[in-house]
Amino acid sequence: MGLIVHKYGGTSVADIEKIRNVATKVIKAKKDGNDVIVVLSAMAGETDKLIQLAFQASDDPVGREYDSLISTGEQVTVSLLSMILNKMGYRTKSFLGYQIRILTDKNYKNARILDIETKAIENELQKGSIIVVAGFQGVDEDNNITTLGRGGSDTSAVALAAALKAHACYIYTDVNGVYTTDPGICEKARRLSKISYDEMLEMARAGAKVLHPRSVELAKKYGVPVYVKSTFIDDEGTLVVKEDKDMEKEVVSGVSYDRDQAKITVSHVPDKPGIAASLFTPLAQKNIVVDMIIQNASSEGYTDLTFTVSKKEIKEAQQIVEETAQYIGAAKVEVDDTVAKISIIGVGMISHSGVAAKMFAALSNEGINIMMISTSEIKISCVIKAKYTELAVMVLHETFGLDQKA
Amino acid sequence: MGLIVHKYGGTSVADIEKIRNVATKVIKAKKDGNDVIVVLSAMAGETDKLIQLAFQASDDPVGREYDSLISTGEQVTVSLLSMILNKMGYRTKSFLGYQIRILTDKNYKNARILDIETKAIENELQKGSIIVVAGFQGVDEDNNITTLGRGGSDTSAVALAAALKAHACYIYTDVNGVYTTDPGICEKARRLSKISYDEMLEMARAGAKVLHPRSVELAKKYGVPVYVKSTFIDDEGTLVVKEDKDMEKEVVSGVSYDRDQAKITVSHVPDKPGIAASLFTPLAQKNIVVDMIIQNASSEGYTDLTFTVSKKEIKEAQQIVEETAQYIGAAKVEVDDTVAKISIIGVGMISHSGVAAKMFAALSNEGINIMMISTSEIKISCVIKAKYTELAVMVLHETFGLDQKA
Repeated sequence: MGLIVHKYGGTSVADIEKIRNVATKVIKAKKDGNDVIVVLSAMAGETDKLIQLAFQASDDPVGREYDSLISTGEQVTVSLLSMILNKMGYRTKSFLGYQIRILTDKNYKNARILDIETKAIENELQKGSIIVVAGFQGVDEDNNITTLGRGGSDTSAVALAAALKAHACYIYTDVNGVYTTDPGICEKARRLSKISYDEMLEMARAGAKVLHPRSVELAKKYGVPVYVKSTFIDDEGTLVVKEDKDMEKEVVSGVSYDRDQAKITVSHVPDKPGIAASLFTPLAQKNIVVDMIIQNASSEGYTDLTFTVSKKEIKEAQQIVEETAQYIGAAKVEVDDTVAKISIIGVGMISHSGVAAKMFAALSNEGINIMMISTSEIKISCVIKAKYTELAVMVLHETFGLDQKA
Repeated sequence: MGLIVHKYGGTSVADIEKIRNVATKVIKAKKDGNDVIVVLSAMAGETDKLIQLAFQASDDPVGREYDSLISTGEQVTVSLLSMILNKMGYRTKSFLGYQIRILTDKNYKNARILDIETKAIENELQKGSIIVVAGFQGVDEDNNITTLGRGGSDTSAVALAAALKAHACYIYTDVNGVYTTDPGICEKARRLSKISYDEMLEMARAGAKVLHPRSVELAKKYGVPVYVKSTFIDDEGTLVVKEDKDMEKEVVSGVSYDRDQAKITVSHVPDKPGIAASLFTPLAQKNIVVDMIIQNASSEGYTDLTFTVSKKEIKEAQQIVEETAQYIGAAKVEVDDTVAKISIIGVGMISHSGVAAKMFAALSNEGINIMMISTSEIKISCVIKAKYTELAVMVLHETFGLDQKA
C-alpha cells in the first residue's frame, strides 16, 4: 500500500476493450489501498501512422512540429482511460506533459527530462483521484511539446515514480517478464524472477526490448523497484532492483542480441591526435549514436577504425563519415549492414574469470566468426554475421546453463 | 497588404496532398506581401472518429477529457502544414491553444473565448514566420484544454483576426461563397458577392452551414471583414461586412432552412408568473439551446407553450420537460421531430412592409401549413412539416426574386 505507478504499452491500450481491461487492473490496485498513477503509450500502431504522415509531409520534418504531431497518440489514450474510469465511478484526471509539467531539454525527438513538478498531481492524489498521464511527452521551457524517443513512456513512468517517491513502478507489457534470452528464438529461455539494475541496463542496451535503457538508468539512480509484468496474464513477472546476494551466484543472467546494427570501417587513417574526435563529433552533432568502437593497432603511422551504428542511421552516418574521411585523408570507408551484436550479461562476471574465453570458444566451435569484441564489467558483446544470430543465442544460452533454474 | 488570417476547413486539409495545396495558397498570400496567420480544422472525418471513440468509452464522457481528446485532430494538421511550409523554404511555427494562449471559460465542448494573448504570435510574425494555429481549441485558466463547439475553427480565425487587428479574415471552405439558398436543393440559388454581418448571422442561425454564428457575431463586434471563398476554385467568393447602401436595396437576401429541429408542446399549463422560467431554466442548465418559443393566449388561467430544440437534444430535453411539467401541473407534453424551420433574411425588411404576409401567402398557396412563426427585424422564420422543406425553399426563392441578379 502506498503510491504506485502503472505503465501500459501500446498493445495494452490498442482499442477501447483493451483500455477497459487496463481500467479494471488500475481499479484493483486502487481498491487494494494504493494511490495510483497510470502512464499510457499510444494505441499500438498509432505512433507509426503519425510518423508516416510526418514523412509524407517532409523527408526531414522539423523536430518541434514532429514532436507536437506524434505526441497526440498518448493524448488520445489518456482521455479515453480517464473517461472509462469516470464512468466506472472513480474520480480521475488526465495530464499531458505541459499540464504536469514534465520539463525537458530542447532535444526534439529524443528529449531528456530535466525536472518534474509534482504539485498538480499531488493535489489530485489528495482528492482521491486516479492520475492518468500521457507517456512519452514533455515540454521545454518555452512551452514547446517534446518527446522522449522510442520507449519514452517507460522513462515517463519511472521518472514520475522517482519524482513522487512511489513505492514501485509496474511496467505492464505484452510479455510476462524479463527472460534469459528471447523466447521467440530460444525455446529454453527462462523468465527471471529478479534482475539487478545493471544487468537490466546492459540487456536493454544489448538489444532486449522489454525496457528502455534510459528508464532503467533512472530507476537505478533513484532506487525505484520496477516490476515487469504481463497486462494479459496474471503472473508474478520480473522485479528489477538493486543487486543483492542471491544474484551474485549467477555468472551470466542473460543472452541478448541486436540485429539493428551496421558496421562502418574507416581504413588507413593517418594516426594523429584528434582523429577519433574529428570522426565522431560530426556524428554526435547529428544525434547518431555510435555503439561499439574499435581502433586497430597502428602500423607505419596509419590505423583502422571500426564502429557500429543503428541500421536506421547507416545512410546518414555513411555520408557524414565519407566526408570526414576525405578531409582527414583516410583511404577507404566500408559499410556492412549484415551484422548483429550478441551479448552475455551477468553481475557474476566481475568475480569469475574465463567467462570471455568460454564465450569465444562456444561461438568458434559452431564456426561463428567474431568481427568485433567489446567488454564492460558485466557484459561481453561480439559482432557477428547476422545470419548466425539464432544459432549464437542458443549456443550461449546452453553454454552458460541458463536453461536450468539457478 | 498587411496582416491577414486564412482559415481552412476539414475538407481542405483531408490528406497530405490537400495540405500541400493549402501551403501553396498560403505562400502565395505571403509572397503578395502579407503577414499570414493560418487557422486549420482537423482532417475531414477525424473529429467524428474521435467523438465515436469517446462514446465507445462512455455514454456520458467527461467534458474535460472529451475536449482533450477531440482537440488532437487540429494538433495533427497544424504540425503537418508547418512541416510542409518549412520544407518549401518558409519560416513557420505552429501554435496550440495553450501555447498562444487562447483563454476560454470552463464550458467544455462549447467554450467561449475570453482573451487572446498576442505576444507569442507577434514575436514570430516579426521574425517573418507564417503562423499556423490549431482551430477549435483553447485553454482555461487552469491549463485544461477546451473546445469551442461545432464550427469553432471559424470562431478561432475571426477571434485571432480581431485580437491581432488583421486586415481581413479569409474562410476557405468547400463552397465558393454564401448563396441566396442551398444550391443543393434549389438550382436557381445565386452566390452573393456581399452580405451584411446581420444577415449572415441570421442565415447562420437559421441553418446555413457556411459560417458558424459565433464567428459572425465576433466579426461584427470587431468589424473584421470576412471573405468566404473556395479552397479548390479560384473565385471571388462572398464578402461579409458592415451593412452599406447597396445592400439596402434588397428586401430579402436569402432563404435558409434547418432540418435539425424538433418541437415540444406543453399543454394546459397553469398561467402563473415564473412558469416559463421554471420550464426553461433546467434546459439552460443542461446547455440545451431553445430556439423558437411561442406561448398561446391564455384561456381560463391556462396556457400552451411550444418551443423548438435541436433534434440531437430532443431526448434529453423531453425528459427534463416531462419532469418539470409534472411539477408545475401541466397536462401534457408532446414531441414532434418531423419539423423543419424555414427562414427568409434581409436587411431591407426593416423598411418594407408586407414581407411576412407575402411569405405566408406563398407557403399557403402550396398547401404548406405553418406551425410556428417567429420574427426579428431582418428575419422571418416558420416551422413547417419537414417533408415540405425543399418545396418551401424553392417557392420562397422565386417569390422574392432571388434568382435574378440584384
